[in-house]
Amino acid sequence: MDGNGTEPCSSPVCVNNPHLEALKNDILYHFSLGTSTHDLPAMFGDVKFVCVGGSPWRMKAFIEYIATELNMNDPKSEYPNICAGTDRYAMYKIGPVLSVSHGMGIPSIAIMLHELIKLLHHAHCKDVTVIRIGTSGGIGLEPGTLVITKQSVDPTFLPRFEQVILGKTVVRNTDLDPSLAKELLQCSQELNRFETVIGNTMCTMDFYEGQGRLDGAFCSYTEKDKLDYLRKARDAGVCNIEMESSVFAAMCKMSGLKAAVVCVTLLNRLKGDQVNTSHDVLQDYQQRPQILVGSYIKKKLEGCN
Amino acid sequence: MDGNGTEPCSSPVCVNNPHLEALKNDILYHFSLGTSTHDLPAMFGDVKFVCVGGSPWRMKAFIEYIATELNMNDPKSEYPNICAGTDRYAMYKIGPVLSVSHGMGIPSIAIMLHELIKLLHHAHCKDVTVIRIGTSGGIGLEPGTLVITKQSVDPTFLPRFEQVILGKTVVRNTDLDPSLAKELLQCSQELNRFETVIGNTMCTMDFYEGQGRLDGAFCSYTEKDKLDYLRKARDAGVCNIEMESSVFAAMCKMSGLKAAVVCVTLLNRLKGDQVNTSHDVLQDYQQRPQILVGSYIKKKLEGCN
Repeated sequence: MDGNGTEPCSSPVCVNNPHLEALKNDILYHFSLGTSTHDLPAMFGDVKFVCVGGSPWRMKAFIEYIATELNMNDPKSEYPNICAGTDRYAMYKIGPVLSVSHGMGIPSIAIMLHELIKLLHHAHCKDVTVIRIGTSGGIGLEPGTLVITKQSVDPTFLPRFEQVILGKTVVRNTDLDPSLAKELLQCSQELNRFETVIGNTMCTMDFYEGQGRLDGAFCSYTEKDKLDYLRKARDAGVCNIEMESSVFAAMCKMSGLKAAVVCVTLLNRLKGDQVNTSHDVLQDYQQRPQILVGSYIKKKLEGCN
Repeated sequence: MDGNGTEPCSSPVCVNNPHLEALKNDILYHFSLGTSTHDLPAMFGDVKFVCVGGSPWRMKAFIEYIATELNMNDPKSEYPNICAGTDRYAMYKIGPVLSVSHGMGIPSIAIMLHELIKLLHHAHCKDVTVIRIGTSGGIGLEPGTLVITKQSVDPTFLPRFEQVILGKTVVRNTDLDPSLAKELLQCSQELNRFETVIGNTMCTMDFYEGQGRLDGAFCSYTEKDKLDYLRKARDAGVCNIEMESSVFAAMCKMSGLKAAVVCVTLLNRLKGDQVNTSHDVLQDYQQRPQILVGSYIKKKLEGCN
């Protein structure tokens, strides 16, 4: 037991829920998929890598990119959205790689992960690696730097995620897989195309007041207060700030999924708050996590042949 | 002062942020709009009603519906997405009505509201009413019932929203406008098309464990634990459960915006967890908040002529 009511389990992708077996049809409502309407083992049984990110456009771009990288590109293929029956999330697949959008913030990614974990479980997937590829604000790093998350920390810099269950707060661990992080860092060093570091990532519930920005609709603190807070975060090992890593780390760990978070920093928060980089530069930055993770997946799949 | 660092302000839509004036160009990043790239007063100065909801498809359907209701329907018009430069949110406008999607969960709607409040402020809008039209799980109500929120309560049934600012927790009030709620209820009684009640709405950070569901990837409690919790919620006046109302109520109140939350209940949580209603019935349910709010807006605008 890890204090979260979970037990070690032998199932390849763990669902820690004794009630699920009794469900005749498990409707994955926010994916518009279900066990009695879709043959999940046939559709997803070969999945080995799942990449998730906030933006549906970016996750479509990723599947196109990875298809080319893996020489699985079919020029006629349009990579249909597997979740076309809903607008909550978008999902694309090519060979062993699944690409899923998760929207912004902890609740949005948590809904997606509950249904993704059940999907992988129902599909009898084994040895799955899940990587979040996202954007973030950096602290003291050059914009465009990639941060591979060591631990996801809360706004008081503690490595924990608080889940409220039936009105009571349960604390969950937010460690990510250290060997996967190292492999990704080594991959980036071999690529030698952009600065990459391993560090802590702060996960917040809000983009403006929650991250000490001065440019939200409300702001009750001074620039000095803001900078004091961000410097304390940096001193605690925080390299970047985003809004999904804590629940992502916690839920992947509880399911026995090997997981990593790779985010590009769009700006240096010690120098400003607004994302005012040109569109082309932003596009370049947002491709960097895709390029690193694409290179890693290619290497792993080639290692299997 | 209301304890949140905000002061009464004379501006029609209040931004409580002294730093904003110093910004030459305020980039509303997640809308792909900005004060130096767009003429916000020309684009939005006439807005009187803003309707927000999770799903971009539903918010597009709403603008088409309200256009017909207000006889502003242009058969050639395609109601372009004003935020077409991004996939984070979708925004549509017809006359004085703005329709904006907000994704799922508190962080996602909070980002949208920060930028919406700044947009309305920059556009010099006055006397704006904001209504969230959403879906929810009901407690002890027939599916399809509309709930107009009196107070948004947290998972311990208290009417408050906790905002973390620079690592410290600030508690904000989640009252909604009682006269607007009454007007909406009266409107529904006149329509006489579906059951409508005023009651408390519980706002959670998670759809599965956070709402006591038995069908998530993880579940460490029994059906009895779940039902005990939901019955306690009902005894505390909770009629339905969703994931955005608390921060919506808090932020609208701080900005001086008249606000209401109107959600349809898709199921009775005392009888189950899965949303397994047929597609057509779900479609009908999801149109009900649109029909009520459309009728209310029409009545208000006709009252002005």
